[in-house]
Amino acid sequence: TDVKKIAVIAGDGIGPEVVAEAEKVLKKAEELYGYSFETEHALFGGIAIDEKGTPLPEETLAICKSADAVLLGAVGGPKWDNNSKELRPETGLLGIRKALGLFSNLRPAVVFDCLKEASTLKPEVLEGTDLMVVRELTGGIYFGEKLRRQGEHGEEAVDTCVYNVTEIERITRQAFEIAQKRRKKLASVDKANVLETSRLWRETVNRIAPDYPDVELEHVLVDNCAMQLLRRPSSFDVIVTENMFGDILSDEAAMLTGSIGMLASASMGDSTDAGSFGLYEPVHGSAPDIAGQGLANPIATILSVALMFRLTFNYAEAADAIEAAVAKVLDEGHRTADIAVDKSKALSTSQMGDLIVAAM
Amino acid sequence: TDVKKIAVIAGDGIGPEVVAEAEKVLKKAEELYGYSFETEHALFGGIAIDEKGTPLPEETLAICKSADAVLLGAVGGPKWDNNSKELRPETGLLGIRKALGLFSNLRPAVVFDCLKEASTLKPEVLEGTDLMVVRELTGGIYFGEKLRRQGEHGEEAVDTCVYNVTEIERITRQAFEIAQKRRKKLASVDKANVLETSRLWRETVNRIAPDYPDVELEHVLVDNCAMQLLRRPSSFDVIVTENMFGDILSDEAAMLTGSIGMLASASMGDSTDAGSFGLYEPVHGSAPDIAGQGLANPIATILSVALMFRLTFNYAEAADAIEAAVAKVLDEGHRTADIAVDKSKALSTSQMGDLIVAAM
Ligand SMILES: CC(C)[C@H](C(=O)O)[C@@H](O)C(=O)O
Ligand SMILES: CC(C)[C@H](C(=O)O)[C@@H](O)C(=O)O
Repeated sequence: TDVKKIAVIAGDGIGPEVVAEAEKVLKKAEELYGYSFETEHALFGGIAIDEKGTPLPEETLAICKSADAVLLGAVGGPKWDNNSKELRPETGLLGIRKALGLFSNLRPAVVFDCLKEASTLKPEVLEGTDLMVVRELTGGIYFGEKLRRQGEHGEEAVDTCVYNVTEIERITRQAFEIAQKRRKKLASVDKANVLETSRLWRETVNRIAPDYPDVELEHVLVDNCAMQLLRRPSSFDVIVTENMFGDILSDEAAMLTGSIGMLASASMGDSTDAGSFGLYEPVHGSAPDIAGQGLANPIATILSVALMFRLTFNYAEAADAIEAAVAKVLDEGHRTADIAVDKSKALSTSQMGDLIVAAM
Repeated sequence: TDVKKIAVIAGDGIGPEVVAEAEKVLKKAEELYGYSFETEHALFGGIAIDEKGTPLPEETLAICKSADAVLLGAVGGPKWDNNSKELRPETGLLGIRKALGLFSNLRPAVVFDCLKEASTLKPEVLEGTDLMVVRELTGGIYFGEKLRRQGEHGEEAVDTCVYNVTEIERITRQAFEIAQKRRKKLASVDKANVLETSRLWRETVNRIAPDYPDVELEHVLVDNCAMQLLRRPSSFDVIVTENMFGDILSDEAAMLTGSIGMLASASMGDSTDAGSFGLYEPVHGSAPDIAGQGLANPIATILSVALMFRLTFNYAEAADAIEAAVAKVLDEGHRTADIAVDKSKALSTSQMGDLIVAAM
């Protein structure tokens, strides 16, 4: 049989707990569909700092590079927040994205009907919201030169935001292609009235747009987009934007669905076609406040496995089964604490995982 | 009598219409309280490009500099969107902020009880929301060096984000002082896990925080803030942040109140003490789609006059009267189209202005 290699990076906080449930799902998929997975665990983030003195050990990178896909839990926590830059979990995250060439971060924001009440938005506003933020992940102000220096007015700090046409073109072409497979609407978000990188971004998008005549394109300024996401979330289909804006807007979009504990994400390289390498992780963070207590919601990580099946392995049948199992368990009223109305009836992380596995 | 000089910059789109109503309010305040205002109109933005070939004519700047305060309508529109940088209305806006030393942008986001239904957020979430975004306005990526060049991977663009301690200290001290006069809570927003400017920002805030022991300080990452504004808007009091983050977050905050047509803002220099020079403008934009039709809501501009009275002129009595008049007119059910449930009964811009003047 065709053995698929999956690098598993549990990370920090609730990472190990939610990843354990996702691994149960992998095992169940092997039983049901005859797949064969070889998982290899690797240290990453805070735990790697503690045990190896660096957030991204060489050996972890090697394991990821030799794998077909990476499953990531979450990284970071207050323990490492005051470390110097090289000894911070986030530095590992930026490093792995760059080292694996994962320039495209896909963050769907969908509303789970049975969880609509969890959103702070009015249900009628949320109705039909199903959008995807395509965030550029290896460029911009995240990766440009940074420095400290003495200036005329005391110490000063500098961050540099750089984009070249090649970087802009590859991410926006992916976004157009994704839009073609969805509702055929693309909003390109920039701050072209102020930033030079945004002007190059907009020019590039306009230059390639004629190659996708079936996609309706709009340019939205980032400040306006932050407003429109609140005013008319359901009118968006695909949003493409640069790294920093994508960080902010994808979190806003995820939160407005009320489903942030449920959202999966994929970070991809040159292609989002079936068979492409990808790193899959929940949108939520490491939630150090509830770590180790069996309270975390494993659904976002389990749905990250479904996304991996769909995008990297082309296992559509199993992906459908996972998503249907999640929907069924939720429809039956099962909830973890984060999404429970009556917290006293909330399930533990592993109870939720087991129910989903049983429903597959 | 003490004559106060006000530079009036009506600008583009709905700017002239809403400013005309604000001027009626100035006149009424003269009658009622014996004040004396000398208003001088100046060209700015798109109309200045058309008539003078530059968005910020020397003579406009001179008028503003010799005034005690500036009242601004709105600038910009599609007509000038494809102009080169020097011939864009936004360039005038950045130029006037810099030239007048207006480094502090105060953007209150409050909920008008009678307009709660206009928000897309659930009323119970919005309950008690009353926050102020203090945005740094003359530094950061807006004003750093920008360039285009040929690189290894084709054309590339660069924006530079620079902050020095002096700039950070003066804006955050203002924010602490504003918090002291409010609910004594300050959220400082940055991206210290990625940006060097944010690390300097956070260090500086922590260094000066002991001078304000009565203010409760929290550091919030920008992506998390975009989420928390949606999840718990009423828990914020004062938010202080750098220019680009402030642009995005203040618009998100304004929109979530459902009152964006009603929000005033102030841009200040060295001091927010009574008597300080300031530029006052509505938070909303130039709305070119409804310009010239008498449909615009003049309330945000009228409330900008109240803010000017309070912050620059120390005319608290008149400021209170304006705010009470607005509240009364709204309580009586009068609405312009943007906030009307039954649009067929909506008032025109000047009808709304006249009602507020009559209620003063
Ligand atoms: C932890 C941080 C560096 C990271 C980012 O800003 O990219 C996170 O917020 C994310 O969105 O994955
Ligand atoms: C028009 C634009 C340059 C401006 C800004 O980004 O500062 C506007 O969005 C604002 O917030 O006043």
